[in-house]
Amino acid sequence: MTEKIARDEIDRLLTTPAYHRWLGLWLEDVGPGAVTIGLPFREEFLADVDGSYVHGGVLAALADVAGDFAVIAQVGYAVPTIDLRVDYLRAARPGMELRADGVVARAGRSVAVANIRVTGDGRELLLGRGLYATGTAPPAK
Amino acid sequence: MTEKIARDEIDRLLTTPAYHRWLGLWLEDVGPGAVTIGLPFREEFLADVDGSYVHGGVLAALADVAGDFAVIAQVGYAVPTIDLRVDYLRAARPGMELRADGVVARAGRSVAVANIRVTGDGRELLLGRGLYATGTAPPAK
Amino acid sequence: MTEKIARDEIDRLLTTPAYHRWLGLWLEDVGPGAVTIGLPFREEFLADVDGSYVHGGVLAALADVAGDFAVIAQVGYAVPTIDLRVDYLRAARPGMELRADGVVARAGRSVAVANIRVTGDGRELLLGRGLYATGTAPPAK
Amino acid sequence: MTEKIARDEIDRLLTTPAYHRWLGLWLEDVGPGAVTIGLPFREEFLADVDGSYVHGGVLAALADVAGDFAVIAQVGYAVPTIDLRVDYLRAARPGMELRADGVVARAGRSVAVANIRVTGDGRELLLGRGLYATGTAPPAK
Repeated sequence: MTEKIARDEIDRLLTTPAYHRWLGLWLEDVGPGAVTIGLPFREEFLADVDGSYVHGGVLAALADVAGDFAVIAQVGYAVPTIDLRVDYLRAARPGMELRADGVVARAGRSVAVANIRVTGDGRELLLGRGLYATGTAPPAK
Repeated sequence: MTEKIARDEIDRLLTTPAYHRWLGLWLEDVGPGAVTIGLPFREEFLADVDGSYVHGGVLAALADVAGDFAVIAQVGYAVPTIDLRVDYLRAARPGMELRADGVVARAGRSVAVANIRVTGDGRELLLGRGLYATGTAPPAK
Repeated sequence: MTEKIARDEIDRLLTTPAYHRWLGLWLEDVGPGAVTIGLPFREEFLADVDGSYVHGGVLAALADVAGDFAVIAQVGYAVPTIDLRVDYLRAARPGMELRADGVVARAGRSVAVANIRVTGDGRELLLGRGLYATGTAPPAK
Repeated sequence: MTEKIARDEIDRLLTTPAYHRWLGLWLEDVGPGAVTIGLPFREEFLADVDGSYVHGGVLAALADVAGDFAVIAQVGYAVPTIDLRVDYLRAARPGMELRADGVVARAGRSVAVANIRVTGDGRELLLGRGLYATGTAPPAK
């Protein structure tokens, strides 16, 4: 649990959106400015003609969400992505359950930067960094 | 059609992989070092609790594929993504049919760079750039 | 000249800072949300043991400035860089006079994105993209 | 010292190029796939009309060199930069002595990825990541 947002609310923001549900994302861990997101394997994730690895777009989505929710865990509300950069280090293989760690590097009044790492079977598959717009807090109700 | 690879073969590489089929990607146009990829809307693409916009991970996947297939159209064989960078300019709204243009900026013996642009209703939604590994031509049969 | 800032003022912002003066940057052209910056060659720019090409850090600085001043030409005041991404396509050779084009892709209330292209002898040497903080207008005097 | 290249040779590659000499770069530490580079302050580094912070292009050059030499420390020979991405977290102030850490995240036969961090007065000023071409080993003599 963080101070600005309850774990249940982060969980709700993560598991309600249609694309998150289709992917199967779940919240493994959350702390101040940091989350770990899990992603089980689906056959529809496969990328190539031979079905030998998971599509980079699936990993990019997972990375984006990990960075995004790290910022949410820090600022306490949903934030849109401004830009995302991902480096693919190794392929994710069929059947692999994936983990993505997002950690806020710096959060300011208008933008926040998060570091992202996706692993599978304990190896680094992707390194990423994302920028998120923090100047969009919803009006208090 | 390009000289190193037939349009039918590009189409097969695009429409066979499981994730491409799930997304619904189709080849709108192809030329030397350039492709246009279409993506119809699906309800499962929606990103947020209110379902008000398409997930950035879907746009990133579309962008990755557009850059990748621009390089394929140039070099004639499938190439893995090394890195991808996307800037989100505007949200893709529910029901929008998307287009992604990929154009090779430079292709060398080991890497190729492609410029990427995703549009919806004629407006730029995403600008991207991707790096692809070209030093992986399959052995001649 | 643009509407929000005079060309003379852009020129002053470009040619006053110490690092800009050392590099030798000059304003070749400016329009709404777009600039062309020139950079003459200096021996101190050379990168390697053999002095065979210009350092990537010099090109990155030139790229940063081109994107930055494109945004300045649009919003009318100095803006800090949030992030910068550069792809090196070809080496800049000793003696080459360089040009950098910066063009705003989208400017919002808190951030602006600019596309950047550096050329030498008419060839593309670098493609870049930068994000700049626009929410920092100085108080009116 | 690393196994593939002596520290003296890394030092020579770092301190011989004209731009490195002008910047004043020095090798603080080196290990397998990792370096720390120091950069003393120069008045010519200042960025703005008021001279209140160091130019982002100087930091980008320092970041590029740190990533590059991390790869050199791993593969044993000079490598060109393919792409570089930098996030500016905080301004470098006049008089600050800077440090840049470069660490190889993955080195393959054609490309290597390095993580980069620039600090000043013990605070993170910049996070970066660079891609370097490793398939360019010089012919044995």
